[in-house]
Amino acid sequence: MTLLDHLPDTVSIYEVGPRDGLQNEAATVGTVRKLRLIEALIAAGCTRVEMTSFVSPHWIPQLADADNLAQLLEAREGVSLSALCPNLQGLERARAAGLREVAVFLSASETHNRRNINKSVDEAVAVFAELVPQALSHGMRVRGYVSTVWGCPYEGDVDPRRALALAQRLLALGCYEISLGDTLGVGTPVQTQRILKLMLSEIAADKLAMHMHDTRGQALANVLIGLAMGIRTFDAAIAGLGGCPYAPGASGNLATEDLVYMLHHMGISTGIDLEKLWDAGRVAEAIVRRELPGRVHRAGLRSLAG
Amino acid sequence: MTLLDHLPDTVSIYEVGPRDGLQNEAATVGTVRKLRLIEALIAAGCTRVEMTSFVSPHWIPQLADADNLAQLLEAREGVSLSALCPNLQGLERARAAGLREVAVFLSASETHNRRNINKSVDEAVAVFAELVPQALSHGMRVRGYVSTVWGCPYEGDVDPRRALALAQRLLALGCYEISLGDTLGVGTPVQTQRILKLMLSEIAADKLAMHMHDTRGQALANVLIGLAMGIRTFDAAIAGLGGCPYAPGASGNLATEDLVYMLHHMGISTGIDLEKLWDAGRVAEAIVRRELPGRVHRAGLRSLAG
Repeated sequence: MTLLDHLPDTVSIYEVGPRDGLQNEAATVGTVRKLRLIEALIAAGCTRVEMTSFVSPHWIPQLADADNLAQLLEAREGVSLSALCPNLQGLERARAAGLREVAVFLSASETHNRRNINKSVDEAVAVFAELVPQALSHGMRVRGYVSTVWGCPYEGDVDPRRALALAQRLLALGCYEISLGDTLGVGTPVQTQRILKLMLSEIAADKLAMHMHDTRGQALANVLIGLAMGIRTFDAAIAGLGGCPYAPGASGNLATEDLVYMLHHMGISTGIDLEKLWDAGRVAEAIVRRELPGRVHRAGLRSLAG
Repeated sequence: MTLLDHLPDTVSIYEVGPRDGLQNEAATVGTVRKLRLIEALIAAGCTRVEMTSFVSPHWIPQLADADNLAQLLEAREGVSLSALCPNLQGLERARAAGLREVAVFLSASETHNRRNINKSVDEAVAVFAELVPQALSHGMRVRGYVSTVWGCPYEGDVDPRRALALAQRLLALGCYEISLGDTLGVGTPVQTQRILKLMLSEIAADKLAMHMHDTRGQALANVLIGLAMGIRTFDAAIAGLGGCPYAPGASGNLATEDLVYMLHHMGISTGIDLEKLWDAGRVAEAIVRRELPGRVHRAGLRSLAG
């Protein structure tokens, strides 16, 4: 039994709820309510928060307040507030708002990339070949996403070698870390082991993160494989914010509380206060005004009777 | 990386939805509707189904139709229909109804045992010391449960050596298998590894099953540890039937579809047809007339667009 013999002391959590979660809400959440959520996350000890996306309001009206939101949030020592930037205009907006970190986004599936950002993968790479060096020249860090690594809603299976090549390309452009996404939440542990084995044959573990969706309840089992293989950064969304457009009522993002609950009980620290994180989940639920699916969020931290 | 190097070809699923799930429903489900669910489970390939409990209707009115239900279900080649028996009267009812398998139930926590079955652990063991040999003499098989192994709602942490001693006692009485339960859904992977290591130092893996609750989303991560350590039988409830009395809206039992989805995608067969199992989940939802929490149940088996 060597499964859990090499666990790390600490793991880094990259919180995507304010961006990945709120962009999928049917009703737009107001800026003040978004600020309340982000402040609650920071108060809980989250040090990496993706707060919005500098995408055209035409495409994602839910995040049309990106500039205002970013300007209202004070920079804080030890906290990285990031935002997605699909193009150079987005980068300029992020720079003007004072951001020190941005993220770029590609899909391992050609069809998903076109449907999602209206560009071919090659066209997107060409944009990022300008964007990433420009961001670096402004002193910003750039994170890269490669999505649909575990499967695509249009193409089905995706060749992991394609995801590897894109991850390498983004790293070569200057991204400090690549987050590999199971966008559909279809991944299972043997597949995860196979994908990570390929990735880790070419990329150092500290350059990779996992962004697993819990749509079919598999996220933490996949995280466990990642942990055992050396991955030390995991994306999650508070209370499981972020639905799945193909299945109303189904969950999407892995809930941050479920992930942190597992890690802390395994003796792995995250720098997060789980009680305060649970409070942040209540804030998330209050601002979106619907029940959120996170398991710990729903059940609470303890089961003591009386 | 030796995590998934010794996966089995097949795993046995023990379905507890009709008993463990329906006994927790606020509104009693009628016998005909229960029969529909059990038939749907059998049609999906479930070969081990715990259908009811021969407990006093005074304690669990939801299962007051146990005798009638058991008599209405025809015996089928290759399908084991079981029921919980708390005492000799229960065993007599099970025998009269023609059952070939029953189950007995103990808690590793003294307080939980008293609150749950109104007996001390020693008193319960004394009852089973009569019940199990009597069942065997009637040609029945007897399964044993040890619950609250991962934690107790009244006592908090539970010494796993106590659970081990009780499992050994039930095996010595003649139980063919012991199902270890995380009744509260508080367990996490390192704890699971520690508990199973102790259990497997004294008991053969093929005598053990795991009964994990998904209350905090940890069930499949714990199952993965069990798989890697040689456990080959897992309990689950269709669509996640069975709530948690301490947190309304929270999930309890691991959903059978989530478990089977993971296993099949790992190349492990269960004898179950996942599409038909998903249909059985729709039946479960229809008969309890409320939304059930299973992830695959909610999201569906595929995420293909258009």
